[in-house]
Amino acid sequence: MKFARYQEKQTGLIKSAVLREQTLYEIEGNLFNGRTYSGPSNHLSNVTLLPPLEPRSVIGVGSNYIVPGGVKPEQPPQIPVFFYKPVSSVIASEEPIVIPSGIEEVKFESELAVIIGKTARHVSEQDALDYVFGYTIANDVTAPQFFHPNGHWMVGKSFDSFTPLGPYIETELPLDSIRVQAVHNGIKKQDSGIDLIILNVPFLISYLSRVMTLQPGDVILSGSPSGAEFMRKGDEISCIIEEIGILYNPVVNA
Amino acid sequence: MKFARYQEKQTGLIKSAVLREQTLYEIEGNLFNGRTYSGPSNHLSNVTLLPPLEPRSVIGVGSNYIVPGGVKPEQPPQIPVFFYKPVSSVIASEEPIVIPSGIEEVKFESELAVIIGKTARHVSEQDALDYVFGYTIANDVTAPQFFHPNGHWMVGKSFDSFTPLGPYIETELPLDSIRVQAVHNGIKKQDSGIDLIILNVPFLISYLSRVMTLQPGDVILSGSPSGAEFMRKGDEISCIIEEIGILYNPVVNA
Repeated sequence: MKFARYQEKQTGLIKSAVLREQTLYEIEGNLFNGRTYSGPSNHLSNVTLLPPLEPRSVIGVGSNYIVPGGVKPEQPPQIPVFFYKPVSSVIASEEPIVIPSGIEEVKFESELAVIIGKTARHVSEQDALDYVFGYTIANDVTAPQFFHPNGHWMVGKSFDSFTPLGPYIETELPLDSIRVQAVHNGIKKQDSGIDLIILNVPFLISYLSRVMTLQPGDVILSGSPSGAEFMRKGDEISCIIEEIGILYNPVVNA
Repeated sequence: MKFARYQEKQTGLIKSAVLREQTLYEIEGNLFNGRTYSGPSNHLSNVTLLPPLEPRSVIGVGSNYIVPGGVKPEQPPQIPVFFYKPVSSVIASEEPIVIPSGIEEVKFESELAVIIGKTARHVSEQDALDYVFGYTIANDVTAPQFFHPNGHWMVGKSFDSFTPLGPYIETELPLDSIRVQAVHNGIKKQDSGIDLIILNVPFLISYLSRVMTLQPGDVILSGSPSGAEFMRKGDEISCIIEEIGILYNPVVNA
């Protein structure tokens, strides 16, 4: 099932819906629990898409794919490279990615985003996927020029517009067969099967749930395949997982 | 004015209030805008304190005080060491700090916490304090054993219970004259005037507002003075800013 969140062009109202073909069937109530169809429907052409949820938090993981033909580490790292992105950095498909003043380029990183649907604490890898509501696509936009030399990524990951998310949430994703892709100015730059992931989705959920209580609306960005590059003003970037959709954003200067 | 958030012992209801002497005058509506007194009042002894707000996000800054007699850097760093703590790590005064399994001790760090009250974007240092709703006390509990060797602090800052916050929000704090203190098992370990801070509160707000849109409910932990130490099971830690109150937490093992 595909979920969307959007603003109606005519009324300005913000709504959530189930998407079938090109039609949005409005829902009300809690996305994760207790939603009902409220009756009205809309054609996709009558709305402006918003990020498909308002995340409670956004957690990323660094360096999580091997290059094609590479060898995975035998053991997971004792401490994975996790980081947070602020919810203020989240934008929708079609919205511009804004390059901060003082720099000329920022990196795109196409990623599978995992949306937690149930409170998760000390969850095993075997059970981890039971806590997933669905999946969407993220572009983990990054300005490494603002990384602290001692390894603190916070500023370089946090600028407004640095986390495009969407276009839809897909609840039935064939996780093992997806490809995570990015098309930059019409040229395919990232295109990896999820078999190249190092710490897989169940591991990420299980590990994080042993540190913190994960809650519905927490979003885990599962890392970016090889091929991420820099973008400049005027560029266009599409992050693609075919089963979910195309997350498209133009790039502008501040 | 002092604000508290609490659970009534008798009814279990969660409420916010203005605290005068030992009496809580209930308020309703938005804490930052449009609150009204709703009539009832409670004695402090009839409630269990909760964190004084549910933060939207928690941002910390590293190494932000000089030692007494030390010399401040002439220039602020080009990129300050900022980091996030998850909202799931926030607990109230009196609640236990839980040492994660696998380790024996965690650090306390007593800090002034700044609560943003108005949307702040590209704010100057001169105007920054206009965006502050009030101040509380934070204990930025830290397990450096879980810091990634390449400088990523995320896991070591993120465990449940690692951000005691409270007991109250004080909206009229004489910012220049406060002392940030910690008393560990009855012994004073931290006790610094805010004149020893390196990046002051207006700088922190202004810098962050040039990266991201700060929103009401965002909390900035302004760094910890020298003297932070490790705590073990059975220890007691009080973080104190006299004008705000005492943030007290016992320490237990997982």
